[in-house]
Amino acid sequence: MSVEEDLSKFFNPRSVAVIGASDNPSKLGYDVFKNLREYGGRVYPVNVRREYVQGVKAFKSVLDIPDEVDLAVIVVPREYVAGVMRECGEKGVKAAVIITAGFSEVGEEGARLEREVISIARKYGIRVIGPNCVGIMNTWNNLNATFVTKAKRGYVAFVSQSGALGAAIIYKTIKERVGFSKFISVGNMADVDFADLMRYLANDPETKAIALYVEGVKNGRKFLQAAREVSRVKPVIALKGGRSASGSRAVASHTGSLAGNYRVYEAAFRQSGILVAETIDELLSMARAFTQPLPRGGRVAILTNAGGLGVLLTDEVERRGLRMAKLSEETVGRLREVLLPIASLKNPVDTVAGARGREYRECVKALVKDPNVDILIVACVVPTFASMSRTEHAEGVAEAVKEVKPDKPILAAFLAGHVSEDAKELLESAGIPNYERPEDAASAAKALVTYATYRRAAAGEAASKA
Amino acid sequence: MSVEEDLSKFFNPRSVAVIGASDNPSKLGYDVFKNLREYGGRVYPVNVRREYVQGVKAFKSVLDIPDEVDLAVIVVPREYVAGVMRECGEKGVKAAVIITAGFSEVGEEGARLEREVISIARKYGIRVIGPNCVGIMNTWNNLNATFVTKAKRGYVAFVSQSGALGAAIIYKTIKERVGFSKFISVGNMADVDFADLMRYLANDPETKAIALYVEGVKNGRKFLQAAREVSRVKPVIALKGGRSASGSRAVASHTGSLAGNYRVYEAAFRQSGILVAETIDELLSMARAFTQPLPRGGRVAILTNAGGLGVLLTDEVERRGLRMAKLSEETVGRLREVLLPIASLKNPVDTVAGARGREYRECVKALVKDPNVDILIVACVVPTFASMSRTEHAEGVAEAVKEVKPDKPILAAFLAGHVSEDAKELLESAGIPNYERPEDAASAAKALVTYATYRRAAAGEAASKA
Repeated sequence: MSVEEDLSKFFNPRSVAVIGASDNPSKLGYDVFKNLREYGGRVYPVNVRREYVQGVKAFKSVLDIPDEVDLAVIVVPREYVAGVMRECGEKGVKAAVIITAGFSEVGEEGARLEREVISIARKYGIRVIGPNCVGIMNTWNNLNATFVTKAKRGYVAFVSQSGALGAAIIYKTIKERVGFSKFISVGNMADVDFADLMRYLANDPETKAIALYVEGVKNGRKFLQAAREVSRVKPVIALKGGRSASGSRAVASHTGSLAGNYRVYEAAFRQSGILVAETIDELLSMARAFTQPLPRGGRVAILTNAGGLGVLLTDEVERRGLRMAKLSEETVGRLREVLLPIASLKNPVDTVAGARGREYRECVKALVKDPNVDILIVACVVPTFASMSRTEHAEGVAEAVKEVKPDKPILAAFLAGHVSEDAKELLESAGIPNYERPEDAASAAKALVTYATYRRAAAGEAASKA
Repeated sequence: MSVEEDLSKFFNPRSVAVIGASDNPSKLGYDVFKNLREYGGRVYPVNVRREYVQGVKAFKSVLDIPDEVDLAVIVVPREYVAGVMRECGEKGVKAAVIITAGFSEVGEEGARLEREVISIARKYGIRVIGPNCVGIMNTWNNLNATFVTKAKRGYVAFVSQSGALGAAIIYKTIKERVGFSKFISVGNMADVDFADLMRYLANDPETKAIALYVEGVKNGRKFLQAAREVSRVKPVIALKGGRSASGSRAVASHTGSLAGNYRVYEAAFRQSGILVAETIDELLSMARAFTQPLPRGGRVAILTNAGGLGVLLTDEVERRGLRMAKLSEETVGRLREVLLPIASLKNPVDTVAGARGREYRECVKALVKDPNVDILIVACVVPTFASMSRTEHAEGVAEAVKEVKPDKPILAAFLAGHVSEDAKELLESAGIPNYERPEDAASAAKALVTYATYRRAAAGEAASKA
């Protein structure tokens, strides 16, 4: 059985047992079972003391469940975990998420317990995610095996070595409309690790990019080998925690793993095709870009209705080593026909505030057709005055995309907080990622270019070996 | 009359005339008058064609208003602006905000009109903000002389050379709960410029920091002289648009001013005591920090309930050249009494997820009392499970602050999107700025340290000259 088949039981189980499901809202087992009840598959509560949990018939042991169990989600106190795992083994369970904490992250006694749990898992052939984690989500089938709110559906698989931080990011992204395909809090990585997950996610059709929050890696060779293979198929982007000296020491006391020298990590990451992010927002911004086609080069065109926004975007684009495209004469001619005389027809193209949805549509069409343009960033300060609709510029962009069906990436930078919500919704429906900060849009563009370059080089290498 | 007295008519007018006030919601004069009606002072609509505007008796000319007029807000088409200004002069108006566009930013004809308008203003002693601007706000007296929504009240004065970008930032900050004392869209700066505004804001009691979005400066010497003087009183933070080669060219076509070489700007900025920001979020993050006392040094302590968050904060703090404080033995002893054995008592102090509001309170008290700590960053992943309140950690921090009354800066980094809204509200009421991104909290800490160092050096210089 391949690794991919193994892990599919985690993300597409036919049936799930929640061991430690609870009726008491102050227990994690309450939230985990409540969240899992929304899942399409069969979900069974296991509780040694109760006949019903949240109104559902409960079982004293996983062994009592009159059904096969694909996935066990374990939230019992740590002293019961080994016993529960043995029962799971007897039952034939092949995948377990152990949310319970108090293992290798807390000292020698915990580490001993963790080794015991893993040796039981190995004996019965159970793959384990955790322990000491928040759990896992598959937004595409409503599987939420965590105690936090379900992430918004999308195309980024997010794998986090910090559970609480991961959970905080989920909440942040719900507010900011960032979507995920899968969320995996890896916890202590006693069994399933980054490498296994990258390999599984490489074949996941809903995952367009893999975002990792990495504090430390136990088996560096395995990690880099997986990254190298997976990067040829889809982008892997990593944010490393513990880059500074004190940060690295904090990692040691947090996850018990060695953070190592960041320069060494960074070089190894880049050699393996991993894109390196510096902040959480950059990590997610980069990952979200990969719903777009890969660019053929690094020449960026910017369209804006606010001069200052165009200026800031241009600064951020050039700061990252991307070039501003020199627009073709044909494009400039077309822009001149469409825009007011006071518009700026040089790149960044500034329509000035008077431009409407129609002008945006025509400009986008002209710019994506320009052979000198590899990537288009469409920026807009969403208008707040009554003479314009708040969505017309986004509609213009969506219409242009529908008409031209561009084979080039388009990124949006529609600003203005709550005023721009409908416009962003519309862009999203049209498949265009929106960024509210110029630096995030530029990081996304840079990620597309860097990865496209890597892919071409990797393909060339493969071809020359063949 | 000093500059300060001059500009006070802009921000605290006893009476305002809106010239071009409109009943037609598709006109800017509609929004401007509507916004100004919430102002405490007397506000008069002027419209050549209508007897009433939005139900209020209107005047054909500013000369017909049976009251003194302190401030004129002008939104008539550009060909009428000169005439209107002459009438304002006859009326004795001393301050005019010209929102109307189509002046020096659009070419020679516009530049000629602008010179005419300014020569009229000079003749009558009228100070002018604009033309080609979004207008001005004073959140502390509900003066909103713009066509956009009023900003949230706070302590940052924000001066923007890009109107639309400024407006977009206002909307963004309403959503993100960032407060402003004043907002000034300077437009073409035909009269009132950055230097005048810095000098005025230096004496504004509600302004704790001055944030500038600068594209180009016409009179560099005047600008830097003002910055140098004002920086001795309160911090000036600037984001320069047009740092890259193409960005600089875009500035030339946007505001018509020369962006100049960024390195030259940056060096001149820093020499004059200006703090330099790289992004909008950093600009506002830095400015918001100055509700806090200035730190005596650059040693940072971090408190967190999530290891990953502590790691990322530590990385960002050290990346900016700040040091992580070495906690005193007394502090470590106190933390040991308060926290669970598995907590990490080294800086960053990781309480682990079990810590409650009481633990946060005691830890904050211990950390701010530590003589080795100059700045405290209190981070928290706001809990989402029912056994803890979502506000108890923020309450703990607020209680500690109330009890200790620290003379050191405290910055918060409470994460978790909508889940943390109540906690953030509470921190805000306690006067503690909150940052949802680790890099923003670190930039805020760095700004406090840099400015404190500058102030001490400037004071030393002054003392040695005396």
